[in-house]
Parts: sequence; C-alpha cells; structure tokens
Amino acid sequence: MADFELDDRLAADTRAVAELPLSTLLLMNDRRWPWLILVPRVAEVSEIADLSQIDRAALVEEIAIVSNALRSLPGAQKLNVGALGNKVRQLHIHVMARHVGDAAWPGPVWGHGISEPYDETEATALVDTLNEAIRTA
Amino acid sequence: MADFELDDRLAADTRAVAELPLSTLLLMNDRRWPWLILVPRVAEVSEIADLSQIDRAALVEEIAIVSNALRSLPGAQKLNVGALGNKVRQLHIHVMARHVGDAAWPGPVWGHGISEPYDETEATALVDTLNEAIRTA
Repeated sequence: MADFELDDRLAADTRAVAELPLSTLLLMNDRRWPWLILVPRVAEVSEIADLSQIDRAALVEEIAIVSNALRSLPGAQKLNVGALGNKVRQLHIHVMARHVGDAAWPGPVWGHGISEPYDETEATALVDTLNEAIRTA
Repeated sequence: MADFELDDRLAADTRAVAELPLSTLLLMNDRRWPWLILVPRVAEVSEIADLSQIDRAALVEEIAIVSNALRSLPGAQKLNVGALGNKVRQLHIHVMARHVGDAAWPGPVWGHGISEPYDETEATALVDTLNEAIRTA
C-alpha cells in the first residue's frame, strides 16, 4: 500500500492546524464559517467503513475534540459534521461551527456560494486559538 | 434527564428499519437515494461530542455497519455521512449511498429539490434487503 499523502486539493484550500494522533487537522480557507477538516493519515481510504475499528474509535474522538474546540469560539451555536468525498475521494471529515442566520443557514455549507479567504493575521489568530482549545480540551 | 423519544419530524419522514444496540435505524422516505438515519437512543443530545466515549465508539461502528449495508445495494458508488441537525436538534446521523449523476451529484442532498416518496412495495423490499445486509455484516 502507498504511503499517506495529503490530497492536493485539500492542501490548496486549507492551512495546517495540528497533527492529531490519527488525523491531520486543517482549517478551510473560508472565513464565512469556522470550518475544520480532519484527514486520517491512512493511505487509500475513502470511507469511514474502510478504516480499522481502532482507527474509527480514534477518529470519532478526534471529531469530539475538534467539535469542542469549535464550540469554544464566540457565536458557535451548532456543529455540522460530514464525510462526503464526492469530489475529493481521500477520506476527510468536515467539522464546522454554524449559527442561525449564517450564509447558508439552515442548509449545508458544501457547494454554497463563493468562499471568502481569510487574511493572514485573522487566519493565524484563529489557528492559534483552535490549537490552544485543543491542547486544553 | 427525560427519556429518549424519537423526534416527531424524523418519525414523519421515515420508516423504521432496525433497532441497533445504540441507535434506531430509519429509512428516509425519499426514493432518490438510499438514505438511512441513525438516531442514538440518548435523550437530549444534539452533538456527537455530547455522547459518552463508549456511545461514540458504538455510533461509529453502527455508521460502518450501515455503510456496508448501503454499499451492498446495486449502484452505490460513494457514501455520504453527515450529522447536521440545523433543523431537527435531536442527534441523528445521515448515511446515504450516492452515485455519479444522481439528482444532487456531486453536491450534498440535504435541502436539494423535492423528496420522492417510495411506494409501499418498494419501501418494504428495501427495508428487508437492508435488514438482511445488516444481519449478515
């Protein structure tokens, strides 16, 4: 089996946040929502069902950790978690914070409108805040 | 804490498939996609992060079991898994089979178009097929 390598499109749309035990954690470069992506570092896997049971248990814990970090941000009212992969087949799990009246509320964010990139200062500050929230979880 | 009771809107849009150890499994009454919903029988929980660690591990295994049942259906090419809950706050996890060129491909199905109810024979046959796939998983 090939080594794990992060998909080019995921890399292009995100910046690195942290390396968790199973997954690489990325911040989607779209300031409309605090939007994180967990990418388990397992090669050639497209579905949660194709992870080992041990990796699935690790993944759901990382979803919980990342969820709690997002909930610590101001304005986060609801979390959305999704593993779609219709465009990018490398298994990746979206975890994002939503609030009533946000740009896509109450619909899903995937495919909604045009992404709005962060400026550098804003992105760096958010990555620092999220890392701190994850470390102290 | 109140006892678990299935949300009225989830009940209205679905038919029962099975009682798994943690979750009630429902079939969405929309023949555009084979679309299942797992509802953990835990009262007053809206987020995966609010389940206990043991329940999270059980949930991700039930996602895998249901995923494999859906993959056994003809034409299933990709699974989509999502916990949104923007409209119905009771924690529920969508697991559905997608294929290239389906009604919403490659976008998400939530909020897409108008649902197309099954006829009775079709729904009963699909529920039987899914139950058989789950039992033999």
